[in-house]
Amino acid sequence: MKKYINDPDIVVDQSIEGYLAAYPEYVRKLKDARVLVRKRKPEKPKVAVITGGGSGHKPAFIGYIGEGLVDGVAAGEIFAAPPADWIYKATKELDMGKGAIYLYGNFSGDTMNFRLAKTLSEADGIAIEEVVAYDDIASAPAVDIKKRRAIAGEVIMWKIGGAAAEAGMELSQVKEITDQAVFNTRSMGVGTYPPVIPATGKKSFELSEDEMEIGVGHHGEPGIAKEKMKPADSIVEEIMERIFSDLTFKAGDRVSVLVNGLGATAYQELYIVNRKVAEILAGYRVNTAITYVGEYFTSLEMAGFSITLTKLDDTLEKLILSRADAPMFKQFDLSS
Amino acid sequence: MKKYINDPDIVVDQSIEGYLAAYPEYVRKLKDARVLVRKRKPEKPKVAVITGGGSGHKPAFIGYIGEGLVDGVAAGEIFAAPPADWIYKATKELDMGKGAIYLYGNFSGDTMNFRLAKTLSEADGIAIEEVVAYDDIASAPAVDIKKRRAIAGEVIMWKIGGAAAEAGMELSQVKEITDQAVFNTRSMGVGTYPPVIPATGKKSFELSEDEMEIGVGHHGEPGIAKEKMKPADSIVEEIMERIFSDLTFKAGDRVSVLVNGLGATAYQELYIVNRKVAEILAGYRVNTAITYVGEYFTSLEMAGFSITLTKLDDTLEKLILSRADAPMFKQFDLSS
Repeated sequence: MKKYINDPDIVVDQSIEGYLAAYPEYVRKLKDARVLVRKRKPEKPKVAVITGGGSGHKPAFIGYIGEGLVDGVAAGEIFAAPPADWIYKATKELDMGKGAIYLYGNFSGDTMNFRLAKTLSEADGIAIEEVVAYDDIASAPAVDIKKRRAIAGEVIMWKIGGAAAEAGMELSQVKEITDQAVFNTRSMGVGTYPPVIPATGKKSFELSEDEMEIGVGHHGEPGIAKEKMKPADSIVEEIMERIFSDLTFKAGDRVSVLVNGLGATAYQELYIVNRKVAEILAGYRVNTAITYVGEYFTSLEMAGFSITLTKLDDTLEKLILSRADAPMFKQFDLSS
Repeated sequence: MKKYINDPDIVVDQSIEGYLAAYPEYVRKLKDARVLVRKRKPEKPKVAVITGGGSGHKPAFIGYIGEGLVDGVAAGEIFAAPPADWIYKATKELDMGKGAIYLYGNFSGDTMNFRLAKTLSEADGIAIEEVVAYDDIASAPAVDIKKRRAIAGEVIMWKIGGAAAEAGMELSQVKEITDQAVFNTRSMGVGTYPPVIPATGKKSFELSEDEMEIGVGHHGEPGIAKEKMKPADSIVEEIMERIFSDLTFKAGDRVSVLVNGLGATAYQELYIVNRKVAEILAGYRVNTAITYVGEYFTSLEMAGFSITLTKLDDTLEKLILSRADAPMFKQFDLSS
């Protein structure tokens, strides 16, 4: 295992130290918890947007702390949920009297700890809502949609929910809109080389030299099948077909596209993937409001990618196109 | 070789098609050349900033087409210079009567073709200047500074030169400032896993499972030495020591920092690298005006990173902090 680290047991802490050193204008860390919060206070009190999860997914989660995105992050160990106490501390720190919304992914450890933090915060009189992303169609059938795990669709959830909160909407409205964004989002991924966990040196899955894992999760969880490697266009066709059978699109619908690299895959390949995504969408006469291609939610140095489509209504479109300014996600206002 | 491609011979073209599909508001392609240009014309005529080089380095070069950065790119095959004719066509297309500046890296194929394009363009009455980046201190000793090749320092050259042109400066002034930026920039990298060339399936270098290549180039060129893998902090110390012996810094100096991932290295590791860079700079009481950490100039899926320091004067600092809006590089104005 050749990694640029010092000690496998402190990679998360040292990485966060380096992150804080890079963006002192954007983020600060709470003293007694691995919680990072937005440094520049919003001009007016707003709903606090809080997320968190295991580490090893940068830019998720800490890269998204900023204007129009999230206000605070509780960062767990590699691929492990953050403790409830840290989420609670983030909530106490960030509440501006307008309540907080927890926007996180559907993994059992995260769910348990965010719900415990919700109970603790509510006992202090802070209003809490939550939205849990479940965008990975490979992880459970449509009838069990709420059992699905989250993958890169979380980024779209943060973008839209964060924009709603930044726009000054009330907690119930931020909750309603973000629920809709998650409901309208579908993703699926593929992996070719596994991530290696620093503390153990272990690969999170094994594949032979001509295989890929279709439907792979963000921690290397198994997907639908191990298949022989095939041309990019065929992989994209398979993923898009599954997404389109899960969520109906019709001519004239508007979507956002996220082609997300999982860590080691070259941008060049991600653009080849996007080429086919765009061609398929054009074939269905579905219109793309915005396209993101890049590394938005990685799995250490896993090779592979995921495709995320979100069906947009006018509200969602305005919010996804609005300005955002976080260390690892910057967007000029495109909504007007 | 498991890559998400369709045909090794058309990866560059298909990747560009996918890129154009993602950012139709930003870029368009000329009909008869692999030249991408800025779609939104600047409000007032300005010096045209043109670059180019081999493909396989995204975000370089095409990701930087936009406001405050470059106006046009001639994109060669993987790791191969673009033909002079394309650079000439880019120049003809982009000249607004204020001349053009070629900002490229010091590689023999690029130098030859950019100089030929300069001759062709000048014959048409277009004023041309050029600045050639030579930031990689591992590639030649200081006495042969102009023989050094370019690595990620090119990004800083484009940022500063592009901002100078966007600010409306005349050709000679853009040239002078960008020359200064390059003169003040030093980089060095390290590689652990090689990139694999799609057309041949060949690795660009070979290392054993406990080795790294110190001073590796952006195409996998050999550096100073193959060394045993060591902790991140020791690697950073070695690189920083070499940079500091090449360019003198004193307490109170201001710099920009670029920690650049070469493709497959996890962001987490890049931040661990930045942690040590920041610690060393603080030790010298050198002040950091801005830090960039991420994949800014890759080498397909090479694992490794480079560190780039640029010593800033007031002019360079104002320009590096100014607004930029390209598909793969967005920065809100930080200069005021």
